[in-house]
Amino acid sequence: MFETLDLSLKLDKQTYRAELERLDRELPTLQRLVYERGVPVLVVFEGWYASGRGDAMARLVHRVDPRGTRVHVTHASREDELLWPWLRRFWKRIPARGEISIFDRSWYYLLWNLRADGELDAARWERHLAEVDDFERQLVDDGVVLFKFWMHISKKEQKRRLKDWADDETQRWRVSDEDWKRHKHYDTRLRVAEEMIERTHTHRAPWTLVEAEDARHRRIRVLRSFADELRRALIARGVAPDELEPLPEEPPPGVVLPPVSEQDTLPQPLDLPADSLLARVDRTLRLEPDEYRERLRAAQKRLRALEFECYSRRQALVAVFEGWDAAGKGGAIKRLTAKLDPRGYQVIPIAAPEGPEKTHHYLWRFWTRLPKDGHWGIFDRSWYGRVLVERIEGFCTEDEWRRAYQEINEFERVITSHGAVIVKFWLDISPEEQLRRFRRREQSPIRRHKITEEDWRNRARWPQYYAAVSDMLRQTSTAHAPWTIVEAEDKRWARVKVCEHVVRALEARLGAPVAR
Amino acid sequence: MFETLDLSLKLDKQTYRAELERLDRELPTLQRLVYERGVPVLVVFEGWYASGRGDAMARLVHRVDPRGTRVHVTHASREDELLWPWLRRFWKRIPARGEISIFDRSWYYLLWNLRADGELDAARWERHLAEVDDFERQLVDDGVVLFKFWMHISKKEQKRRLKDWADDETQRWRVSDEDWKRHKHYDTRLRVAEEMIERTHTHRAPWTLVEAEDARHRRIRVLRSFADELRRALIARGVAPDELEPLPEEPPPGVVLPPVSEQDTLPQPLDLPADSLLARVDRTLRLEPDEYRERLRAAQKRLRALEFECYSRRQALVAVFEGWDAAGKGGAIKRLTAKLDPRGYQVIPIAAPEGPEKTHHYLWRFWTRLPKDGHWGIFDRSWYGRVLVERIEGFCTEDEWRRAYQEINEFERVITSHGAVIVKFWLDISPEEQLRRFRRREQSPIRRHKITEEDWRNRARWPQYYAAVSDMLRQTSTAHAPWTIVEAEDKRWARVKVCEHVVRALEARLGAPVAR
Repeated sequence: MFETLDLSLKLDKQTYRAELERLDRELPTLQRLVYERGVPVLVVFEGWYASGRGDAMARLVHRVDPRGTRVHVTHASREDELLWPWLRRFWKRIPARGEISIFDRSWYYLLWNLRADGELDAARWERHLAEVDDFERQLVDDGVVLFKFWMHISKKEQKRRLKDWADDETQRWRVSDEDWKRHKHYDTRLRVAEEMIERTHTHRAPWTLVEAEDARHRRIRVLRSFADELRRALIARGVAPDELEPLPEEPPPGVVLPPVSEQDTLPQPLDLPADSLLARVDRTLRLEPDEYRERLRAAQKRLRALEFECYSRRQALVAVFEGWDAAGKGGAIKRLTAKLDPRGYQVIPIAAPEGPEKTHHYLWRFWTRLPKDGHWGIFDRSWYGRVLVERIEGFCTEDEWRRAYQEINEFERVITSHGAVIVKFWLDISPEEQLRRFRRREQSPIRRHKITEEDWRNRARWPQYYAAVSDMLRQTSTAHAPWTIVEAEDKRWARVKVCEHVVRALEARLGAPVAR
Repeated sequence: MFETLDLSLKLDKQTYRAELERLDRELPTLQRLVYERGVPVLVVFEGWYASGRGDAMARLVHRVDPRGTRVHVTHASREDELLWPWLRRFWKRIPARGEISIFDRSWYYLLWNLRADGELDAARWERHLAEVDDFERQLVDDGVVLFKFWMHISKKEQKRRLKDWADDETQRWRVSDEDWKRHKHYDTRLRVAEEMIERTHTHRAPWTLVEAEDARHRRIRVLRSFADELRRALIARGVAPDELEPLPEEPPPGVVLPPVSEQDTLPQPLDLPADSLLARVDRTLRLEPDEYRERLRAAQKRLRALEFECYSRRQALVAVFEGWDAAGKGGAIKRLTAKLDPRGYQVIPIAAPEGPEKTHHYLWRFWTRLPKDGHWGIFDRSWYGRVLVERIEGFCTEDEWRRAYQEINEFERVITSHGAVIVKFWLDISPEEQLRRFRRREQSPIRRHKITEEDWRNRARWPQYYAAVSDMLRQTSTAHAPWTIVEAEDKRWARVKVCEHVVRALEARLGAPVAR
C-alpha cells in the first residue's frame, strides 16, 4: 500500500492557512455533536519515528476541547502489563460515549516492534492480528468512530531528521542508539508495517496513510480526514446535515436571539463585605493586543521548555482552576496548553460526582487522578467544589464543609511533600462583567449552548458564593500551595497572568530552563 | 504497649467452638446492616512475619459475604507507585459506602520496613506518621469504621515458626534469607513498631493488639473485636440495638411470615422445548451428607494446593458462575473459596452496570477486572448478562445480543490464548425447586431479605430465560472455554461438582500438585 503514497506532496502556506481556518470553524460543532449524541471516538497515531507523529497529534489535540478528550501514550510493554491479556491495557482506555480518546501509538506499535525484532513467531503474529481485528470490530459495532493514522516518511528522510536532531545540541536527547538501530532496519520494518497495515485495513476500521514529509500537508491531511470522517459518521448516526453547519459567532444583522433567562435576579448594586480578599481585586488591569500577543507567545514558549524539563526531571505540577462562571477558565487553560506536548499534561474536568465517586470519600476521585511525576495535571474545577458548590447547594453538611478546609490543606501538603508543585488560580470578575458575558453568550449562536438556566441560578447566589470564596481563599492559601487571584475582567490580562505565573512557579523550583 | 500483652494466653477448643458459632450467627446481620446503611469498613492486618496474620485474615474473609468485600495485598513499593504521593495507592483502595476493604498489610508495613531498614530519616518518619494520622482521621470523619490489628509474637516464637517451616519440605518456600535477616533484627524492629503503633494509636483509629501465639486465641480475638466494634459503630450510626439481634433461621413455631408474592404466576406444568441441553439435565443426582463432607473436604484441600501452584507458576483462572435465581451460586462460591488464601483470589459480583460502566462497551468492565496472572477471578454473574438479562429485558437491541455470542467467544479466546484457564458453570434447577426455595426463603427471617418482587418477576419469565440459556450454552461452549452444566437440584451435589471440576480443570493444565 505504501507505493500509493506520493511523499513529495506539499502544501503552500496560503492554502494551509485557509484550510486551518475552515477546520477551526468546523471542529467545535463536530465535537459538540459527538458529545451531545454520545458518540465514542478513538484516534490512533502510528508511523515512523521522527515522522512528525507527535506534531500531527498535537495539532489535533489543541483543536478539540480538552474537557472531552484524553491522550494515552503507549510505551513498550511494562512488566506489570504482561500479567494480563495484552489488549487489556487498551480496553481499559477505550473512550466512553461522547469522549475522544487519542492514542499516541497503540496496539500496532507493540506488534510492529515485536514482529520486526523477531520476538513474535508467525503463529503468534497471526493470532494477534486476528485479535486486533476482533477488538476493532467490536468497538466499531458498538458505535465507536475509529481513526487509524499512519505517518509515512522515506528512509532517506528519516535519516536526515535523525541527523538534524543529533547535530543540534538542544535536540540530541531525541535520538538514541535504539533509534539508529531501527533506522538501519528500515526496510525490514517497512515490510512488517506493510503487512500489518494491509491485514488490518478493514472496511470498518480503515487506515489513513499520511504523506508525512511536508509538515503542512501532513497536518491538514490528518485534520481534514478527521473532520470529514467524523461528519460522515455523525450523519450515519442520524445527525441532519444542517446541524453540522458551523454556527456563526454572531446572529445575522438585526436578529436578536431569545435570552435563556429573561431577567437577572441578582440585585444591583450588590452590597458585599469589604473584608474579603476579593474586595481588593483591581478590575482595571488590562493588556493591549500587541503586548498580549508578545507576552503570551514568550510565556508559551517557556512553558513548552518547562514541560520537557519537568518530564526529564520527573517534576509533577498540579494546577487548579476555579472562578466565577464565565470568568474564562476554559480560555485560560487553552492558552496555557496551546503549545504543550499533549503527552506531558492532562486537563481534568470536574463535574458533579457520579457512580463510584458518590459512594467514596469526596477526595477519592482527586487522589486517583493526581498526575504522575514528570506530568502536569490541570484541574478545571477541583476539590474546592466541597467548600463552594457543595456548601452553597447543601450537598454536604455544614460540619463536612467546615472540616474540608483542613482536609484540603492536608491533601495538598501530601502532594507538595512528595515533590509536586501546586498552583491554584481563582479567576475573578465583577457581577457586571459576568452579566455582560452571559448576555453576549446568549446572543452567539455558537456559544449559546454554554449558558443554561443553571448558570443564571448560580449567578443569583453571588453573595453566598462570595462569602464561600472569601472563606476558601483565607483558609486554604498555604505556604506550600498558595492561591493566585487572577484579575479576569480583561481576558488578555488573565491569560497572560496565568501563563506567566506557571512559568515563575516552575522556574522557582527548577531554575530557568535551556530553550529546546 | 507491647508489654501489656500476655502471649501465653490460650483458648480451649470448646470455648473456641462455641464462640465461633456465636460469631457465625452475629456476622451476617452485621454485614447486612453495613450494606444497608452504606457504612464503609476498612480492616488493616499488620504484625510480625509468621504471626498468623494471613490465617486470622482468612478466618474473617471466609465469614463475610465476598460480594461486599475486597482484599488488598500490599507489597513493598513498586517502582511505578513511587511516581505518586505514597498514600495514593491506599486512597485508591478505600472502601465505598457499604463495602468492607481488607488490607493484608498496609501503609504501616511500608513505614515499618523503611524506618527499620534505615531508609527513612527522622524528619520523613515524622512527616509520614503525621500523614497517616491525617489520612485515617479523614476516613473516620467521613464515616469509615477502621480496624487496625497487630499480630504479636515473641522473637523466640518467630524463630520456632521459621525453623519449623524451613525444616518442612513443603513449607520451605515461605522462608527467605530476607526473613531470617529481619528476624535477627527483631529487637530493632520491635522498637520501631512500638513507636509507630503508639504514635498512631488515636482515639478515632485505635489499634487492637492481638496475642498471636495461640491460634484459637488469635482468631477469636480478631473476630470478636471485629463484631463488637462493628456493633458499636452501627449503634453510633443510629441502628437500633434490636436490629442487631441475629435473626433466626426459622420463624417461631406457629408463626407464618407473609409471602413477598402472594401468587406464583408461572404456569404449571411448563411446556419447554426438548431440544435444549437443559432438557437433558438429570435432576435426580444427589449426595448423602457423609459422602458430601468427605469429597468436599478433599477437593477443598486440593484447591488450596492448586491455588498456591497457580500463584507460583503465574497461572490465572477465570471462573464464571451463572444460573437460575436461588440455584445456589453464592453457596457454591463459598465452598469453592472456603479454604483458599484470600490473597490469591477475588470474587467479583456483577450487578447492573452503573456510572462509567454504562457509558462504555459492555465488555469494558470485564476486561478491567480480569485476574492478574497467578490469581483467580471468580465472577458471580458475568458478561453473559448480555445474552441473558439484557436480552430478555430489552436492555440491549436484538442486533447487540445476537452479535454478543461472537464477541464473547473472541473475548474468552484472548484470555485463554494469554494462558488463563476458564471454567464456566451453569447452575441448573427445576422451576418447582426454585419455587420451593423462594417459599422457604420467604419463611426464613434471616434470609427473607434475599427475595424480592423482582425475583418473582424474573421467575415468571422462565420460558424466555430457558430459551436464552439454551442459546447461550449452544453458542458459547467452545473448546477453549466450555460450559459445565451443574445439576443443582441437590445443593450438596452441585457444590462438590463445582469444586471437583475446578480441581480437574487446573490439574489438566498444571499436573497434580504436591500437597503443601
